Amino acid sequence: MLGNFTYCNPTKLYFGQDSLIGLKAELPKYGDNVVLIYGGGSIKKSGLYDEVMEILQACGKNVAEISGVMPNPTLEKLYEGVEIARAHKADFLLAVGGGSVCDYTKAVAVSVHCKEDPWEKYFQRFEEPECETLPLGCVLTLAGTGSEMNAGAVITNTKTKQKIGHVFADEKIMPRFAILNPLYTLSLPHYQMVAGIFDIFSHICEQYFSGTDDNTSDYIAEALMRSLLVSSRIANADPQDYEARSNIMWTATWALNTLIAKGKTTDWMVHMLGQSVGAYTNATHGMTLSAVSLAYYRHILAFGLAKFKRFALNVWDVNPEDKSDEEIALEGLKAMEGWMRELGLAMTISELGATEEMIEGIAEGTLVLKGGYKVLEREEIIKILKESL
Amino acid sequence: MLGNFTYCNPTKLYFGQDSLIGLKAELPKYGDNVVLIYGGGSIKKSGLYDEVMEILQACGKNVAEISGVMPNPTLEKLYEGVEIARAHKADFLLAVGGGSVCDYTKAVAVSVHCKEDPWEKYFQRFEEPECETLPLGCVLTLAGTGSEMNAGAVITNTKTKQKIGHVFADEKIMPRFAILNPLYTLSLPHYQMVAGIFDIFSHICEQYFSGTDDNTSDYIAEALMRSLLVSSRIANADPQDYEARSNIMWTATWALNTLIAKGKTTDWMVHMLGQSVGAYTNATHGMTLSAVSLAYYRHILAFGLAKFKRFALNVWDVNPEDKSDEEIALEGLKAMEGWMRELGLAMTISELGATEEMIEGIAEGTLVLKGGYKVLEREEIIKILKESL
Repeated sequence: MLGNFTYCNPTKLYFGQDSLIGLKAELPKYGDNVVLIYGGGSIKKSGLYDEVMEILQACGKNVAEISGVMPNPTLEKLYEGVEIARAHKADFLLAVGGGSVCDYTKAVAVSVHCKEDPWEKYFQRFEEPECETLPLGCVLTLAGTGSEMNAGAVITNTKTKQKIGHVFADEKIMPRFAILNPLYTLSLPHYQMVAGIFDIFSHICEQYFSGTDDNTSDYIAEALMRSLLVSSRIANADPQDYEARSNIMWTATWALNTLIAKGKTTDWMVHMLGQSVGAYTNATHGMTLSAVSLAYYRHILAFGLAKFKRFALNVWDVNPEDKSDEEIALEGLKAMEGWMRELGLAMTISELGATEEMIEGIAEGTLVLKGGYKVLEREEIIKILKESL
Repeated sequence: MLGNFTYCNPTKLYFGQDSLIGLKAELPKYGDNVVLIYGGGSIKKSGLYDEVMEILQACGKNVAEISGVMPNPTLEKLYEGVEIARAHKADFLLAVGGGSVCDYTKAVAVSVHCKEDPWEKYFQRFEEPECETLPLGCVLTLAGTGSEMNAGAVITNTKTKQKIGHVFADEKIMPRFAILNPLYTLSLPHYQMVAGIFDIFSHICEQYFSGTDDNTSDYIAEALMRSLLVSSRIANADPQDYEARSNIMWTATWALNTLIAKGKTTDWMVHMLGQSVGAYTNATHGMTLSAVSLAYYRHILAFGLAKFKRFALNVWDVNPEDKSDEEIALEGLKAMEGWMRELGLAMTISELGATEEMIEGIAEGTLVLKGGYKVLEREEIIKILKESL
């Protein structure tokens, strides 16, 4: 736990089958003008929309809506939502959906009273809001992004083909509360479920594979991975297993609420690569991560061998007998690959629609971060992307 | 993660060598009348008292003091502190010390505006405050109790020989902020350091050894135990190892801030036994726990065999080959005993001053809780205490 850091995460989590009662408890704390924000209408089919609307009305709220938030929320959609929230004089934003909806809601929250262009300010210059920001809450329907308990938001600029995330510094950008009901995730298609599972796994890996220290955060990261491996295999065989889906949902929250990054450096290059693939293909986020992960980790393995060996031993129970450190480390990645194939994850970017011709552009759009075991050169990014084809 | 639960833990943690700057950032948020609460004066020797006082004065605070808070804070001391806080018209309470000081400060915070007797209300009837409660912050000098990020308080009634804890339901009883500077813990005597380490370990065990589910909380508990084993051995050999002491400090916070109890039942009988021993002997809290733990766990092992086997495999790396589940489980406890002896923990209640004649009284004072693998009968408590002699 070297270095100085702060931890503050005041989001109130209501977890479980009856957790929607939390919405009734929380809404009265905020002003009357609420903007309800959701995606493609699956919450209307499931009946959740009606349940939420009933609670909003029982709490006497004036409700406007932003619907049709897409899996990779666009800047145009952000502009549209900001106009709706302004016209409604919004006091509070309520996200009902997965991580994209929650991410998008945070972007609206920091933009409604912002006089500058939010893309330039937040996603190009990575500045913090100086304006008033709107409080928000979240009813989560998909486990994966961890957006329900952090201050991160990702927006895609379709014109420049950039998908860029910003983790805001102020905890008031985090949802004030989040309703985590595993039942809402049961109706998700298998493809989305496993993509979410890999998103979670990748969040943990990207905080784990950095630094040479042996600190408490490393152990907690391993615990979350071990729990996820067990639960994901149960859920893969039986997506209706409530217990497994609830462990996955809880793990997702703790995988990206800043806890396991405390006292250490982090990497995030898989997300940078995946997000650039996503901007070119509009593929499901978790699948863009799975499609580039193995090529990336095999590429950096030699630069962080001790950690990859530890990963093999502590997460995948690789038997170290008569093996070199490198053999142990590679066997860990092999075990990870086996698990990924078992779940049916995307193993190449080609299957997501990426082509050889896009490689240059995807590489161009990949932000290079410095926390990992190897700071990537342009030709290394090209090599990783080609190996992922 | 069965069942419904909520999680909300808004305490802001400032961690690291420079974390006292957090005090400067936080104090201006509260009123001018501050009561500074501390223990036996070690903070005067270390210079921390002067540093804190300087910040309080720079922030323009009117400071009253409650000093001499003892390791097991008494009800008399609580009455005394309440009078001081009332006379000072306290707006804010600042605890500087270990878990006892922080616990005590919470007890003052809920009692200042309470019209009833706090012992009767909070520690006998376990009611929640209806009155206004005072906000509090904490500068921690000892890692162990986790009091810096929870709403628990323990008070000892010397007349009735009862040491009783109450975990308040409202998160506003938690410290608003906590300064966690591992440097402050370096000057601690070895005996206090290892007692704190066992207190942490016991907190984890008592939440772990309950329930038959396999949920994310179990994995996180194992991670915290594994991290603590590694760090405690380093710190035992070299108490000045900052990295080890910082991992211990961080682990202590997460061992008892409600996280690893989420979605599961908990036990807490070791604390009930230890607290009753403490009320009779005034021994160091962590040592009262170590002195009764092995007898207790051996007694309940057969009732929770699967979890004790898991503990042996996942925490102590017991090799399961050619062994029965019971043999594996017992080997886990044997490994735990070896680690406890290595640290130099109290292994019997006799060495803490308990005598055969006290056994009846200690048993009488032991609250029987129902979350563990076996709800103890009176004769079982007597048996465990006798085996701990």
